[in-house]
Order: sequence, then structure tokens, then C-alpha cells
Amino acid sequence: MRYELYYWPEIQGRGEFIRLALEEAGADYVDVARREGKRGVAAMMKFIDDKSSARPPFAPPYLKAGKLVIAQTANILLYLGPRLNLSPRDEGGSLWAHQLQLSIADLMVEIHDTHHPIGSGLYYEDQKPEAKRRTEDFWRHRVPKNLGYFERVLQNNGGQHMVGRRLSYVDLSIFQIIAGLRYAFPKRMKRFEKKVPGLVALHDRVAQRPRIKAYLASERRIAFNEWGIFRHYKELDA
Amino acid sequence: MRYELYYWPEIQGRGEFIRLALEEAGADYVDVARREGKRGVAAMMKFIDDKSSARPPFAPPYLKAGKLVIAQTANILLYLGPRLNLSPRDEGGSLWAHQLQLSIADLMVEIHDTHHPIGSGLYYEDQKPEAKRRTEDFWRHRVPKNLGYFERVLQNNGGQHMVGRRLSYVDLSIFQIIAGLRYAFPKRMKRFEKKVPGLVALHDRVAQRPRIKAYLASERRIAFNEWGIFRHYKELDA
Repeated sequence: MRYELYYWPEIQGRGEFIRLALEEAGADYVDVARREGKRGVAAMMKFIDDKSSARPPFAPPYLKAGKLVIAQTANILLYLGPRLNLSPRDEGGSLWAHQLQLSIADLMVEIHDTHHPIGSGLYYEDQKPEAKRRTEDFWRHRVPKNLGYFERVLQNNGGQHMVGRRLSYVDLSIFQIIAGLRYAFPKRMKRFEKKVPGLVALHDRVAQRPRIKAYLASERRIAFNEWGIFRHYKELDA
Repeated sequence: MRYELYYWPEIQGRGEFIRLALEEAGADYVDVARREGKRGVAAMMKFIDDKSSARPPFAPPYLKAGKLVIAQTANILLYLGPRLNLSPRDEGGSLWAHQLQLSIADLMVEIHDTHHPIGSGLYYEDQKPEAKRRTEDFWRHRVPKNLGYFERVLQNNGGQHMVGRRLSYVDLSIFQIIAGLRYAFPKRMKRFEKKVPGLVALHDRVAQRPRIKAYLASERRIAFNEWGIFRHYKELDA
């Protein structure tokens, strides 16, 4: 089946978790808004805003898979996991992988809110003092708690994979979290990384997988930038 | 099967979405930390912090179902849905119900952050100006967008149920969202409700279902309070 991914063409954002899974699996997919540019974005938003749609997505990303239209990043991965051979097939293992992905999704909200603690519709420049306060709290409390949790899960599972004995979409997502935090907060992350050696090693292993390595070197991988969720603002990386 | 729900005993919080589903279904369950008080909370936290656990929850709520331990509210409902007859059984319907529940989970984060925009570990009193700004943005942009979306989904589905032709856990969750917003922001909500008449009517129908009605009148329903996610602070309800 040819999957159609609909997501903002200028950012990695939440869509990147889906792109990484599709790329690792060598799946047949189209990144529609990237392929079609402005026309693709218009089509994407038209579909979301369609007043008569029975099952409209709330927001990108969404995936068209045959007759199904699936939104919410973790939900898309729940669907794709067994089909791309990137999650356990037993119910307990599938729920466990999904549970971890949902905690990653929660962390992404917190990462976004470091630069947008007041409103996602406002400019960063309009909430800089609040962003500074939130970022301090994030690094003091939330990063240690969240990454510490994922490190513990990894170590208790043997240190190689987050879930089971094989690569899963959770491993790919942890790669993306580490890569993104390194981009957004290079100084803070450099100091912090020694506390999560397992996650850092997992990041490095994922980056060396042949298909991921080729993807990261290709034009399909959008560079990190200050429109996405991971943003580098020097003043927040003190 | 007797389900064991683990959640904070003093608040509705995220656990309430699970409680409502279990109550509506007349399921055999124990609300462990409520039954056992401080000892129950200690056991809950000990389990979460257990350094050797293979599949530790990141945070409450979690559900023990036989040998499975499942965390993340929407994930628990994904598991319970078909078993409690509260979600469609086909894959597309199940994913759609879950997708809506994930958007409700996202909304809950935004509701929480109206009073805690800077840090969940800080007191509200330490982030009051920021809370005021965030609340303004929330009511100007986020409530219309989120509840407007759910209203549209409901109306496009015939106005009676959020998903399919029967009651689902999504309907119960919408009830909770409306009830909570009424508690936290009575004035703002009173003005806003005319824009989402379908959701309000759905709330009222759910409240009148025999088992839900009995539950709401029982001691098992914890009252809303200022420790939970929905909090009433007069100055935020201007």
C-alpha cells in the first residue's frame, strides 16, 4: 500500500516521528505537502476544515492508508507499527510501545511550551520572559524526570531497545528527542547527556542504521529550524 | 475480571475518564488508592518508582488488568473500550475513537496549563500573572478551536454520539470536559455554551444515564477542587 502523509512541509515537528518510521521500514509513501508545495498545504487544510467530513483530523499530521484517515502522531504509529514491523504484535507489547510513545508525545508538548508557554498563536518575542522561566523549570525538573524515566526503561530492558528485542518506532522517536534537544539546547544538553548514556548510545545506533543514515543525508530530512517544535534560542540555552 | 485502578485519591484528574467508563459499564473494579488511603498512595508510588520494573508507568493513572499494567489515560480506554462495550470493534472505528480521546488528552494539558503555565511543580501563586495571560489566550483561541471541533464531529455524526451509533468512552469524556469547564470557569462557560449546543446536550444526556447518575450522586465521585486539573480561581474567570 502507498501511504500518504500529510504534514507541514517546512518543519520536522510531530510529523517527523512518522517520517522516521516510514523511512526505516522502506515503506512506499508520499509526503504530500512536501511534494506539492503550497497546493499541498492548501489541500491539507481544506480537508481538515471540511465542514462535512465524518472523521476530520484536529490537526496535522494525518495519514491516508487506503480508506482510513488517521490522525494523532502516536495513533498513526499504533496503526503503522505492526504493518512496518516496528512494534510488538501481542496486545501487551503493542500497548506498552504505544504507552511510551504517548509519554514522548507529552514531552513534545513540554518542549514546545518552553518557547511558547503562553500561547501557540503568539510570537515567541511576545512571551520571552515567560519562556525563560518555563525553560528553567523544564531543565530543572522535567528533563531529568522524563529522560530519566526513558533511560530506566531502556536499561531495564537490556539497554539495546526500548521495547522487546527488536527495533521499534519508540527507538526511532527517542533518537528524534535526543537529536532535537541537542539542536535546541546544545549547552544544556551537553551537560545533561552523561545522565542518560543509554539513550545517547541508542540515538547513535539509530543514526547509523542504513536507511536512517541515508534519510538523514537526503533532502527529505528537513533541517531543524525556528518554526518547528525544537527551536534554538541562545537566551534559553544559558 | 476485577480491574484495579491506581490514581490519586483526592482528585478527579485524568483518572476520572477511566472511572466514568468503568462506572457506566458496571465493571468490577477497585479504586485502589481510594480504598486504602495513604497506604494505597504509597503502594502506587512505590510501583511507579520501582527501579527494576520492566514496564513502569510514567505517572498515574494506571490500570492492572490480570497480568497487564497499562498507563496513559487514552491507552487505558483503548484497552477497556471493546471490553466494556464502549468503543467500536472495527479497527477504523477503534482508531477514530482513540484519536478523539487523544485530542481530549491534549485539551486537558491546555486546561491544566491555564493555572500552571510555568511549572507543574510550582504553586499557582507563583505564576499568577502568567496564568492570567495564558487563560486569556486559552479562552480566546483554544476553547473555540477545540470545542468547536468536537461540536462539528458530533453534528456530522448525527448529534447523538461522538462515535458511531452507540455510547462510547468519548461521549463520557466530553461530559467530563463540559462539567469541568463549568466548574473552573462558570462565567466564561456560561457565555460560551451557546456555541456548542450539541456538546452541552450530550453532557446532559450522559448525566442522566442511570449508572452515571448514581455514580455522580455517590461518594465515589470526588468533588471538583483546587488540587485537580479543573480549578476555579475567580480571577481567571473574569
